[in-house]
Amino acid sequence: MGSLDSNTPTDHAAGQFSPLDPEEFRRQAHQMVDFIADYYRKIETYPVLSQVQPAYLHSQLPQTPPYRPEPMDAIMKDVQSQIIPGITHWLSPNFFGFFPATVSTAAFLGEMLCTCFNSVGFNWLASPASTELEMVVMDWLAHALKLPSSFMFSGTGGGVIQNTTSEAVLVTLVAARDRALGVHGIDFLSKLAVYASDQTHSTFSKACRIAGINPANIRSLPTSVEGGFALSPAVLRSAVEEDLAAGLIPLYLCTTVGTTSTTAVDPIGALADVARDYGVWVHVDCAYGGSACICPEFRHHLNGVDLVDSVSLSPHKWLLSYLDCCCLWVKQPGSLVRALSTNPEYLKNKPSESSSVVDFKDWQVGTGRRFKSLRLWLVMRSYGLANLQSHIRSDVRMARMFERLVRSDPRFEVTVPRLFSLVCFRFVPKRARGPGQIERANRRLLDWVNGTGRAFMTHTVAGGKFMLRFAVGATLTEERHVLAAWKLIKEGADGLERS
Amino acid sequence: MGSLDSNTPTDHAAGQFSPLDPEEFRRQAHQMVDFIADYYRKIETYPVLSQVQPAYLHSQLPQTPPYRPEPMDAIMKDVQSQIIPGITHWLSPNFFGFFPATVSTAAFLGEMLCTCFNSVGFNWLASPASTELEMVVMDWLAHALKLPSSFMFSGTGGGVIQNTTSEAVLVTLVAARDRALGVHGIDFLSKLAVYASDQTHSTFSKACRIAGINPANIRSLPTSVEGGFALSPAVLRSAVEEDLAAGLIPLYLCTTVGTTSTTAVDPIGALADVARDYGVWVHVDCAYGGSACICPEFRHHLNGVDLVDSVSLSPHKWLLSYLDCCCLWVKQPGSLVRALSTNPEYLKNKPSESSSVVDFKDWQVGTGRRFKSLRLWLVMRSYGLANLQSHIRSDVRMARMFERLVRSDPRFEVTVPRLFSLVCFRFVPKRARGPGQIERANRRLLDWVNGTGRAFMTHTVAGGKFMLRFAVGATLTEERHVLAAWKLIKEGADGLERS
Repeated sequence: MGSLDSNTPTDHAAGQFSPLDPEEFRRQAHQMVDFIADYYRKIETYPVLSQVQPAYLHSQLPQTPPYRPEPMDAIMKDVQSQIIPGITHWLSPNFFGFFPATVSTAAFLGEMLCTCFNSVGFNWLASPASTELEMVVMDWLAHALKLPSSFMFSGTGGGVIQNTTSEAVLVTLVAARDRALGVHGIDFLSKLAVYASDQTHSTFSKACRIAGINPANIRSLPTSVEGGFALSPAVLRSAVEEDLAAGLIPLYLCTTVGTTSTTAVDPIGALADVARDYGVWVHVDCAYGGSACICPEFRHHLNGVDLVDSVSLSPHKWLLSYLDCCCLWVKQPGSLVRALSTNPEYLKNKPSESSSVVDFKDWQVGTGRRFKSLRLWLVMRSYGLANLQSHIRSDVRMARMFERLVRSDPRFEVTVPRLFSLVCFRFVPKRARGPGQIERANRRLLDWVNGTGRAFMTHTVAGGKFMLRFAVGATLTEERHVLAAWKLIKEGADGLERS
Repeated sequence: MGSLDSNTPTDHAAGQFSPLDPEEFRRQAHQMVDFIADYYRKIETYPVLSQVQPAYLHSQLPQTPPYRPEPMDAIMKDVQSQIIPGITHWLSPNFFGFFPATVSTAAFLGEMLCTCFNSVGFNWLASPASTELEMVVMDWLAHALKLPSSFMFSGTGGGVIQNTTSEAVLVTLVAARDRALGVHGIDFLSKLAVYASDQTHSTFSKACRIAGINPANIRSLPTSVEGGFALSPAVLRSAVEEDLAAGLIPLYLCTTVGTTSTTAVDPIGALADVARDYGVWVHVDCAYGGSACICPEFRHHLNGVDLVDSVSLSPHKWLLSYLDCCCLWVKQPGSLVRALSTNPEYLKNKPSESSSVVDFKDWQVGTGRRFKSLRLWLVMRSYGLANLQSHIRSDVRMARMFERLVRSDPRFEVTVPRLFSLVCFRFVPKRARGPGQIERANRRLLDWVNGTGRAFMTHTVAGGKFMLRFAVGATLTEERHVLAAWKLIKEGADGLERS
């Protein structure tokens, strides 16, 4: 960075300590802006995957905090020399791992504003704008997704920003659980059964465990490569029937639009039809895939969403919003509030007691909450639905290009039909004998590619097959980065064939 | 603000949409810095408590998101005209409600860096620096608090940053629960009993409900004004004995250092002695009060902490850190990890499998997590322990001054002995007959003060007594603001006496 000033704002010995002097803030924050813009400008020069070894930082830093202040200058030098080498650069245009975490200038500005106000919107009174803008923005995004009005505040439902999908699943699960226990009694907790496919994110079973669901009743229903790794309604029905016959109470189904492993899409409508027969709460986790549904050509993946109870989508995955931002919509906010409300004396106030307002603390695990809707508001206004759609389409176009490149080389195969911007593929060396050797070759290829620091991919196993995941989506990625990554992968394959 | 540029970075019609052009970022972020510095400079001109009515924003904003991009200029005008009036200004120097949320330039810079990198540190590999700096910083803060090494990574324990106390309580509760159920079996879930005083934050019972604890077994043990609203070890012992006699399994005790209502301090050591006799997990929630314990003269409030299982403290409350930042230390990280770990194929990697690293996703509810330790690291380095101590002392000094002012006016009384920077007091009009009239007078006084917009306080009820809470701590507060607030309160009292 240029150089953050080497005078600390106030030395502890120099009298009044004023850690938020506006002019000092202005000066230092301007310098930080330049540091960040420079980082974004030169981000391609860093290895994507950090090349440090475990415990690399420990020996570089003192074991105790300093007693006396240190100049920001010195701290920023350490950011450059000690922190940046340990970062896996998620914003690098050569990042194709996991699902990339997308960002934008508008979201950054929104985050700065959120931090600036630092309003703690646990209830309406504590910062009315925080609650009300969130209500508006959640309705906006619901409109963009063509969710039915039963999920909107302008209809009969509503939405709230959680930090992660895990929390969205947890709070809806607790709402469903308490609704069921209200009927059957607390003693039936260990009889509740929950359902998801074997492709569902691991956070689902974790949320179930946190909520006290009997681990023996967490069903991970089988999928198949032939079925596109989607959960079959018939499989669901027979699992539910079996549980009923065993005296269990079917509670909750977590469906996914765009699984983490291969972006499989569960048939929401058909599954909800089954679930409805048994009074099972249906959640749609479209953390990644949901964002694509702002484009008409992808919206069909949400068909049947009118039949479900709750939907969560994480704009930090594909809608340019930085972490951590997971949108949750529910049809019956009352069921969340009944399970999660608190009413201590020190938070009582007239608007809350009049029931004329929403208190978002009763829609989430924690009490405190940041003004996170600013980020989404700025993204949606600053770019408009038109640009957001074009951003999704551009990523899909690049993924399609990568898919064609893979198909054009007979040493490689696309292992799962591509639906969004993730391509699952693998290297099948001519001389490989059997799945074990193919897996080893792909593991070596992956390690080699990631070890170069020039691109980063991850892997998965689906249908028993080890495969590489090439996820397009980092905000700065352009066609040339995809082409370079493919060239690198081929170079790795050449090397393996020669070795 | 100056004026954020009225040209959008790229119009959707104009070709490639590039939402993170570094130079465009630089330009717009600089303008945002000026907007924020100006906001901080003129923050005293805004009413502290927002004066808007419920649903004020709804009619001002369109019901659907824009299709075409809007200039940032126009958006920022709306921030000024539509959002700021709806904000309760937590950063105002005249904010004395709840516990203020403290901030600083260093923390803002740390938050900017955290957003900048947007690294998603669910496991070590996903961003080694994120995990390793958090380990360092958690040990640093533990050193500053003189926690025993059994809570440090350099010892046998460790710490992790959660979003809120609610999550810190939830994850430790789940760890304790699963440890107990591992012994007794899942069928004993409804037999587990948990303990806290009637002064404990409402989030405790909420976390218990989320974790599936039988609501009938959540004990809210009585405290008294004579006992300083602290939980008595004898009361705890008899409650535990009673539950044992009824066939229940005592599980978890949540103690508090600095309750939300009146900053009462539970005697941690004596309570832990009782708990140990029954194998009960002891948690210390020192969200607010813990920060003071970086000063030697307050450290005694943590005496006995060596006997407990977990401790949580929220630097966003009193250590200048902005939301949301709750530090949790545990003696046995293994118990957290056993309860919260996941291991899906798509996150598997060599460092994690070698067990040579920490994967923080297994210490929290969610999977994704931000690089939050940057904030605390910058705060501790940039200010040094010396300035942080002087900041705590300055707030306490101002609270002590306010307390003296209250005592100097015979119409007022201090209702609870002041321990930190919160003064609980009430107005006792001469002509008031009985507690009902006193309460009504104080409610009217509170509404009048808050309605002026010149200061903001909140209230509580403890020991059956309605009282006003004057919490010093907003970063920009100086003596003159405390004096002005007191003058305003007296003015309100004068008015009430005349009416």
